[in-house]
Amino acid sequence: MLYFIGLGLGDCKDITVKGLEIVRQCSRVYLEAYTSILTVGKDALEEYYGRELLLADRDMVEQQADEILKGADVSDVAFLVVGDPFGATTHSDLILRALNAGIQYRVIHNASIMNAVGCCGLQLYNFGETVSIVFWTDTWRPESFYDKIKKNRDMGLHTLCLLDIKVKEQSMENLMRGRKIYEPPRYMTVAQAAEQLLEILQNRRDRGEELAMTQDTVCVGLARVGAENQTIRSGTLQELASSDLGGPLHSMIISGHVETLQWS
Amino acid sequence: MLYFIGLGLGDCKDITVKGLEIVRQCSRVYLEAYTSILTVGKDALEEYYGRELLLADRDMVEQQADEILKGADVSDVAFLVVGDPFGATTHSDLILRALNAGIQYRVIHNASIMNAVGCCGLQLYNFGETVSIVFWTDTWRPESFYDKIKKNRDMGLHTLCLLDIKVKEQSMENLMRGRKIYEPPRYMTVAQAAEQLLEILQNRRDRGEELAMTQDTVCVGLARVGAENQTIRSGTLQELASSDLGGPLHSMIISGHVETLQWS
Repeated sequence: MLYFIGLGLGDCKDITVKGLEIVRQCSRVYLEAYTSILTVGKDALEEYYGRELLLADRDMVEQQADEILKGADVSDVAFLVVGDPFGATTHSDLILRALNAGIQYRVIHNASIMNAVGCCGLQLYNFGETVSIVFWTDTWRPESFYDKIKKNRDMGLHTLCLLDIKVKEQSMENLMRGRKIYEPPRYMTVAQAAEQLLEILQNRRDRGEELAMTQDTVCVGLARVGAENQTIRSGTLQELASSDLGGPLHSMIISGHVETLQWS
Repeated sequence: MLYFIGLGLGDCKDITVKGLEIVRQCSRVYLEAYTSILTVGKDALEEYYGRELLLADRDMVEQQADEILKGADVSDVAFLVVGDPFGATTHSDLILRALNAGIQYRVIHNASIMNAVGCCGLQLYNFGETVSIVFWTDTWRPESFYDKIKKNRDMGLHTLCLLDIKVKEQSMENLMRGRKIYEPPRYMTVAQAAEQLLEILQNRRDRGEELAMTQDTVCVGLARVGAENQTIRSGTLQELASSDLGGPLHSMIISGHVETLQWS
């Protein structure tokens, strides 16, 4: 059996009792380590679970999936994912490979940012499509998420913006030279996301477009949701662009209609 | 401290380790018992947690909230919610009362249908606004959820439909006579929801409206998501209207654009 186990959002103890029992009895345990992070590291998880964790980076999951699946037809293998296994990244390729190999799988769900974001006081009901905001480069500055925010706002819906994570990325030079040297991890902050959005608004204004929002639109910045030191701050887009919500992970909400922020 | 603790979706062991530790050290533990259910009952939870649970029905939460909050400023009280505390029902009134009374609160998140629905193979990214489908009566047959489905489909987005639960409801007669006699609990099935939607489509067709979907639109019926015996079935709306997915809870997805259902 291949188990997909959600770890939740905070620390070691946010795993479910069922998930922990399975982790402790599996023959191998992988930790997916490139789409999200907990506030504690691999060592803390290993100590608490009492198990060695095999780091599964993007290379391994995408190119060496057979390694993960090996023996899962006759013994139990666990694949741990921060949040819920079907949150932002669904690992559907791994599931399809398991099914094709005649390996059964089971999912142990947990909280993810997709539902825990309700903690800010806005109703989950009133959210539209979720978007991702990626780090811009000098030559790649996609604006498509803005158009989705616009559609949501046209319907009076809030938009949850998931912010980019760059883990184990190679510089263009190292990539071209085939050198497996990796850049330090980067996690987009609310301030960076707000800055990019302000720049898009300026671009659209310059083109004479009718804007879906302004620098005064109410937004919510969230940091480390589910952890002891979570921080939630509401303010205008302009205000969030100069905010400092501390360490990763961050996410941001662009409000839709005027719903009272009840307690943030 | 007032703790809001999500229980997840399946059975006793879907609580997080952190949640369980808190339950075991609180002075009083309430179980919210009117917006969702687990596949196991109160007795099983009490035995596993090793704690007596006080059932909090709608009356208590809405009219006797002070009872729940009593002493939470000097000792620890837990309020258990199936799924995540900020899933479908946010209990924001209780949080506001706690804040007004100077009582601190903390949330222990867990999976809810709002994120676990990703297990059917459709990407959470591609869902629009979530809707609720309520039991129709002879005199009350709201159709507003259809218009929200239409808006989602116009944008190519899937719609998660949460299906009605009637727990501890009084008949009109008992309500008017002030008799606290309750009807047996009712949980809407996928078949019932599909039937109501088909009737709305017929109504709109009769009025000459352009339809957002037909009886042949691909939908997904889900039952007991997160439990051992969860069932997921995709089919046309017409097919789901005559499906039997077994015991509660059920929910349904109306597909948006054509995204391959990868493994359901």
